Amino acid sequence: MHAAPILAGDLRALARTATFIENRPREAEPLLRELFPHIGRARMIGITGAPGAGKSTLVDHMIRLLRDEGRRVGVIAVDPSSPWSGGAILGDRVRMQRHHDDAGVFVRSMATRGCLGGLARATTDMTVLLDAAGFDTILIETVGVGQDEVEIARVADATLVLLVPGLGDDVQALKAGIMEIADVFVLNKADLAGADRLKQEVRAAVSLAARADGWSPAVVRAVASEGRGIADVLTAAREYLARGGRERRTAENWAARLREMLRERVLDRFGDVDFAAAGTDVAAGRRDPWALVEEWLNDAR
Amino acid sequence: MHAAPILAGDLRALARTATFIENRPREAEPLLRELFPHIGRARMIGITGAPGAGKSTLVDHMIRLLRDEGRRVGVIAVDPSSPWSGGAILGDRVRMQRHHDDAGVFVRSMATRGCLGGLARATTDMTVLLDAAGFDTILIETVGVGQDEVEIARVADATLVLLVPGLGDDVQALKAGIMEIADVFVLNKADLAGADRLKQEVRAAVSLAARADGWSPAVVRAVASEGRGIADVLTAAREYLARGGRERRTAENWAARLREMLRERVLDRFGDVDFAAAGTDVAAGRRDPWALVEEWLNDAR
Repeated sequence: MHAAPILAGDLRALARTATFIENRPREAEPLLRELFPHIGRARMIGITGAPGAGKSTLVDHMIRLLRDEGRRVGVIAVDPSSPWSGGAILGDRVRMQRHHDDAGVFVRSMATRGCLGGLARATTDMTVLLDAAGFDTILIETVGVGQDEVEIARVADATLVLLVPGLGDDVQALKAGIMEIADVFVLNKADLAGADRLKQEVRAAVSLAARADGWSPAVVRAVASEGRGIADVLTAAREYLARGGRERRTAENWAARLREMLRERVLDRFGDVDFAAAGTDVAAGRRDPWALVEEWLNDAR
Repeated sequence: MHAAPILAGDLRALARTATFIENRPREAEPLLRELFPHIGRARMIGITGAPGAGKSTLVDHMIRLLRDEGRRVGVIAVDPSSPWSGGAILGDRVRMQRHHDDAGVFVRSMATRGCLGGLARATTDMTVLLDAAGFDTILIETVGVGQDEVEIARVADATLVLLVPGLGDDVQALKAGIMEIADVFVLNKADLAGADRLKQEVRAAVSLAARADGWSPAVVRAVASEGRGIADVLTAAREYLARGGRERRTAENWAARLREMLRERVLDRFGDVDFAAAGTDVAAGRRDPWALVEEWLNDAR
């Protein structure tokens, strides 16, 4: 694996390298270090929302608009796959086929693999790769409304949160978790009953929650399935990107990533600990977990 | 903080201790070690599903049924709060008030605090506390369908996944992530249009995905808002609990927790690293992140 073909825009090398980075992050480090001086041009937009909110459809239309502008678009779709099944990756192949003949689009799905920290790190690694390869817009799509999204939102320069009418107490969920990560709210399926009410609720929630950076998140209507409102969504995202503050956000993202990278590396020293056997001992009441951890720390000293 | 009042069933001590454990996990360790020999009686049931699926309503009715049976019920509600806001805890006070006069119910909400590992660990700590305090059924309620739920599902002995008709491609999400964590599917709002179709889809998904443990998840209809189907839900959960395999699950849970505890402790050695400053350096392109991590590891050696 070498940096040169990536920097030269070789898409086959890019695909191979993406797989390599995802499967063998440690071994990919020298390559990422080579790519690192070449990054910083891409703008990253995160797209999140509950299953069924229409994220993939919105992303597909965004790709089209961005391609019409002549931009090169990378898509990282983060799939909430089970750590036990190994992760079935849906939609990826369908999309890859749709844009197969377009060298200006690169789509990559990633499964969660049972390690959240690892996933945010893997997403960052992938943005380094795509940024260095000259993709100037990177869309990061995540499913769900949990901690994953908060972590991955940190990687993006701007985050869109999709909402749809009729999900009951979704604005409650908003207040509790999504409020701070949304730079733009997209009210998708805005032709459904309840769209007006949802918009009012979101506006009310936005006006109540003063953000530390002074930004008041835009609320944009869309009907992604019909391609309506997509330009407004992009405009709103760009307004947020244009107002600055990106450097601070990137710095915070790297601070979080550095902490994770250190954590992963440091755990390597405990590679010979048999956690499964220890878990059985604790479950049977033979050992207490705190004493076990103390022992491991002392042994490693 | 002492174990004696907890073991004696003092609810005020319990509430104080729960706060202490959540806020100062490290300092709470000696207490948790004292409580550890007294756990193992409680059965833990996880309840998860998208926002608006009706989890809180279901949990409320489950509490009532369990209380009618004379059981003591602990509830741990995990809130997907933002790490930036510090976490607004919703619903907790409302519920606490509802069961305020009932010494047989203890409700505790926990925010996510920006650290998933920490949250699963905190949930485990809380189950140790409630188990030792004599709560024989512990309900663990989580919001969302992401990695959080998978992690927290590991803590529970049985996991209920709530689905509601009309969420579009929710069964897709199922296939990708929720399939393996659901021991029982609850089709809530089963009076809505689309319930039959959803049930068929879930059954089809269940029949396709053979679980390693041979269990075929039950699919139960309910209308939680009217209290219908709650007894069926409990019966299904108990059928799963009764079939054994709990020891293996508990052992796996502890293995995961031990790994996390070690991970948290190990980072303590790097307490003087200024991640924020390092993040700024990396964002500005002055340092590369991999070199920084190497330096820190070498310094700590």
